[in-house]
Amino acid sequence: MASRRTSSVHEPLSSLDGLAQALRCLPGVGPKAAQRMALHLMQHDRDGARSLAQALAHAASAIRHCERCNTFTEEAVCALCRSGKRDPALLCVVETPADLLMVEHTQAYAGLYFVLMGRLSPLDGIGPKEIRLDRLLKRAGDDSVREVILATNPSMEGDATALYLRQQLAPLGVRITRLARGLPVGGDLEYADQNTLLRALAGRSEI
Amino acid sequence: MASRRTSSVHEPLSSLDGLAQALRCLPGVGPKAAQRMALHLMQHDRDGARSLAQALAHAASAIRHCERCNTFTEEAVCALCRSGKRDPALLCVVETPADLLMVEHTQAYAGLYFVLMGRLSPLDGIGPKEIRLDRLLKRAGDDSVREVILATNPSMEGDATALYLRQQLAPLGVRITRLARGLPVGGDLEYADQNTLLRALAGRSEI
Repeated sequence: MASRRTSSVHEPLSSLDGLAQALRCLPGVGPKAAQRMALHLMQHDRDGARSLAQALAHAASAIRHCERCNTFTEEAVCALCRSGKRDPALLCVVETPADLLMVEHTQAYAGLYFVLMGRLSPLDGIGPKEIRLDRLLKRAGDDSVREVILATNPSMEGDATALYLRQQLAPLGVRITRLARGLPVGGDLEYADQNTLLRALAGRSEI
Repeated sequence: MASRRTSSVHEPLSSLDGLAQALRCLPGVGPKAAQRMALHLMQHDRDGARSLAQALAHAASAIRHCERCNTFTEEAVCALCRSGKRDPALLCVVETPADLLMVEHTQAYAGLYFVLMGRLSPLDGIGPKEIRLDRLLKRAGDDSVREVILATNPSMEGDATALYLRQQLAPLGVRITRLARGLPVGGDLEYADQNTLLRALAGRSEI
């Protein structure tokens, strides 16, 4: 607001105001932070600003969704789906490409993925169509798929999405699993929340 | 780091990685935040990404420094310096264009400005040349200037800068002032720091 109020008085700041305004499209960036970022770039890092401009324009036009797994890619089918080294019997359903990267980083999963690009959230207008249920059903109906791992977030909306997907996937007759709940590794029993502890108790295993 | 580690494995994410990397030029944006921003833009706001790209490219090429006051402008001399309504006898020295805007917002100052674009900070390699001392001396030496108000930040570096500028400006024979120190309006005596309270005591005035 500060910058907008001034723009009418001092025309020469208009590019700077425009930049600050444009930076507001970034998540978590308010008016003050946007102004600080704009001034920083103009004062200390114009090359960075130019590189960022190019990266934005390039990404906005080049990135699309993989035809098989729906994640971001620059080609029709992403490298993961094209790879011959992955096990086509396993299909891991995640909410976002960031979640996909997290699972990949464990280096413990050799199957394929499907990215919902969101989770069910009726209040935000995100329904089955937005999470591409049709494409997931088609993908999971592939003859090679034998297990679908629902790796949505362990949150209210993530759980609701997983339950809904289980219902929808049930007719396919594939095995449907979800990630284990329990105490996080390195966590502290004293600081665990009641729900997590409850799940850890219910899911206890012999050692 | 997370995104860089993956880029070698999954080539198709390279534009996204490139964008996340480019976003790191923004102050206060680390690897995680950059990845989140890149995914958000690609998933929810590609138009915003394109607008931001344009605003960045435009600002980076259009914005330069005012020949008189050194602030950001798109013309040789900024609108403030060109305005006939400002009092040329007053010259307010601030650290950044953001500080200039803050003083303008008080609507209580009708003079002109000089923007240092920084403050003395030897450890960061910012000396008299970087804060354009030569241009300030030339500007303050203008016949019309009768008072220079040093409005640097009330911080260690800001104070050091003000003291240095006072020394350098002294031979010009103009009046040199600085902003008052004391309790902030709406502040609480109980929570004031010792230094501020000390200044408030020393600068007490009759009511």
